Amino acid sequence: MKNDLRSVEAALQSLRTHGRSMPPTAAMQFQVLDYDGTRLQVSAPLAANVNDKGSAFGGSLTSLMTFAGWGLVTLRLQLAGLQADVFVADSTVYYRKPLYTDLQAEAVLASDESWDVFLATFLQRGRARIHLQAQVLLPEGEVAAELAGRYVAIAKG
Amino acid sequence: MKNDLRSVEAALQSLRTHGRSMPPTAAMQFQVLDYDGTRLQVSAPLAANVNDKGSAFGGSLTSLMTFAGWGLVTLRLQLAGLQADVFVADSTVYYRKPLYTDLQAEAVLASDESWDVFLATFLQRGRARIHLQAQVLLPEGEVAAELAGRYVAIAKG
Repeated sequence: MKNDLRSVEAALQSLRTHGRSMPPTAAMQFQVLDYDGTRLQVSAPLAANVNDKGSAFGGSLTSLMTFAGWGLVTLRLQLAGLQADVFVADSTVYYRKPLYTDLQAEAVLASDESWDVFLATFLQRGRARIHLQAQVLLPEGEVAAELAGRYVAIAKG
Repeated sequence: MKNDLRSVEAALQSLRTHGRSMPPTAAMQFQVLDYDGTRLQVSAPLAANVNDKGSAFGGSLTSLMTFAGWGLVTLRLQLAGLQADVFVADSTVYYRKPLYTDLQAEAVLASDESWDVFLATFLQRGRARIHLQAQVLLPEGEVAAELAGRYVAIAKG
């Protein structure tokens, strides 16, 4: 890794501030946990995200995965010293199993993507897009929900 | 329509109670507005759903559209006198334009689907699935975000 622990921690703190300052993510109590160089991990308590059946609300699952992907792109740009607005462009979600515990999600780069290509494109054109994958796991490791999403970064004018 | 206004109003009130009793939809202040025999209309204030760029948070847009679809299936089952749990199974969302006003979403049956077939399947098998479409419009009528989703209803008990 090119980035030292201090810059990763600063980027995580910036995401945490964003998460607390956006009313919907604050209300759903989204937490930014950790970034291990590959995966951004986030979480949210079931109590703030429960549906009429006692399991995690589909909208909360998707919101948390969408936020995880947004956070990962934002963090990678920040670690590269770049200023950008990051938007989700589209996403497909599969809800596999009901989740009756707190929500834990992680986002990673899609298998056919490269951060180097994404960052080089962004530097050259002032915008770039990238595919990510995110998932929420059950405590025993099965997939509760998974998302494939495309994000767009646009240089701040 | 086979259903009189009183039963539609009772079904809408039931959805409103659900929306207020689920913590995430209560926090995002989702409102159930109206059902005209085809479309279920819901809304949410921008203030409770705003992102770091001053526009509607992608997770809130998707949550609201997912809720609209869930509400439409739930309402149609209730109007048919059927008891079911309704789950979202999968969805694809396109975020077309940023939205800087309150969120208004509506859900309708997908063009190749039939409520009669859905309800007949549910009665026969105790479960059935159906495709819906939902969208959030800009005030001037353009699409801010659109969702294609599949929902599953499972008989209670």
